[in-house]
Amino acid sequence: MTATLVLLRHGESEWNAKNLFTGWVDVDLTAEGEKEGERGGQLLAEAQIAPEVVHTSLMRRAIRTAEISLNAIDRHWIPVKRHWRLNERHYGALQGKNKAETLEEFGEEQFMTWRRSYDTPPPPIAPDNEFSQVGDPRYAHLPEEIMPRTECLKDVLERMMPYWYDALVPDLQAGKTVLVAAHGNSLRALVKHLEGVSDEDIVGLNIPTGMPLVYKIDQTTLRAEGPGEYLDPQAAAEAAAKVAAQGKK
Amino acid sequence: MTATLVLLRHGESEWNAKNLFTGWVDVDLTAEGEKEGERGGQLLAEAQIAPEVVHTSLMRRAIRTAEISLNAIDRHWIPVKRHWRLNERHYGALQGKNKAETLEEFGEEQFMTWRRSYDTPPPPIAPDNEFSQVGDPRYAHLPEEIMPRTECLKDVLERMMPYWYDALVPDLQAGKTVLVAAHGNSLRALVKHLEGVSDEDIVGLNIPTGMPLVYKIDQTTLRAEGPGEYLDPQAAAEAAAKVAAQGKK
Repeated sequence: MTATLVLLRHGESEWNAKNLFTGWVDVDLTAEGEKEGERGGQLLAEAQIAPEVVHTSLMRRAIRTAEISLNAIDRHWIPVKRHWRLNERHYGALQGKNKAETLEEFGEEQFMTWRRSYDTPPPPIAPDNEFSQVGDPRYAHLPEEIMPRTECLKDVLERMMPYWYDALVPDLQAGKTVLVAAHGNSLRALVKHLEGVSDEDIVGLNIPTGMPLVYKIDQTTLRAEGPGEYLDPQAAAEAAAKVAAQGKK
Repeated sequence: MTATLVLLRHGESEWNAKNLFTGWVDVDLTAEGEKEGERGGQLLAEAQIAPEVVHTSLMRRAIRTAEISLNAIDRHWIPVKRHWRLNERHYGALQGKNKAETLEEFGEEQFMTWRRSYDTPPPPIAPDNEFSQVGDPRYAHLPEEIMPRTECLKDVLERMMPYWYDALVPDLQAGKTVLVAAHGNSLRALVKHLEGVSDEDIVGLNIPTGMPLVYKIDQTTLRAEGPGEYLDPQAAAEAAAKVAAQGKK
């Protein structure tokens, strides 16, 4: 027996458009990002996939992408669950910085290490940095030791997995069609687990915005039965190439 | 000890604007209704009321009003709960009919009985009526005997109260600031319970769209400490007068 899991990275955000490191900064979607949300919903409808529950991060760009895509296909009424463990990677001191300028300032090797290395986080953000989340009421219940101040992908995987086991797995075991509306790196971490991608290979895996990525999950092993499938594979391949090239202009 | 409960009727819907009986028909907000949602959020922010959890019906106009108002005040990330027990009154065979035409066809006495009598429902909707909810996946889990085919306000109160006790009360007992985004009649039913309004007096009580109505709830008795307060009392009084006049033009 299998259940359907759909991963959806939020549509283009204001800071994707400006080429800034975003991380936990809670920016909104652009008009283009809103359109991507609608298109994502339409792709689900065309594939006759009807989410029965949606899980989102605590960030506006993922929440709104979920709202827009579900509203577009008359599934606005399904149950919603939210959790900080689905948030984007915390980009530490890089949050709010321009990607092209960071590349120039620190050189390609350091830049690519921060962006894509599996286990090297950027420097932590200072609590008084304007892009720190200290004092944000949505994280007020998190003790200091668990509140991220910077993260590498390995850190994201470690803090995301409890949500996989505690919240997503039970919905899949119940046979539900599950939509996860989240972020490039929290979804890469999940894909790494589901497909058993190595620490080396995950570095080259990019997830485009607004494109539903569909898995059949074995309800016994709770792993993907095969590789995830984009509902619009050609558009997904083009978009992933664009993500990989970010910062290079 | 008290907790804060905010009741928010959805903003203007497409069928409010067209003067049609809506009930369980899942129409969208108008542009004006979206603005009301934003304004509702701003009134909450000005009053320094920050909802910690939101409960909605399963209907688009309430769901989107909640999304818009919370997004406007940076509370888009709070937990969401939804339930059909918060839905609007089912208007039976009147769903989809023009209010003015219904008034003309049946006369003022019958019209006002259907609209405002506490315990006389309109005729039930036929399962093959285009405005029936038979076959709607969001109600597929409801056995026939509990799925409304018409309702008077008394029926709404009876099916809404289990949600009050099972879902709203626990959040209030936990001291949370609770937002309920719902409908004219599901909220009138709740107000009737909270304020102990008589069967006779509830008939004259109208709740305007998009105006937060705030209660202090005693955490022991689970009743309102006093009458609900609109955050913009003058606008609320004007809007309620307009609701009462509906169908009369």
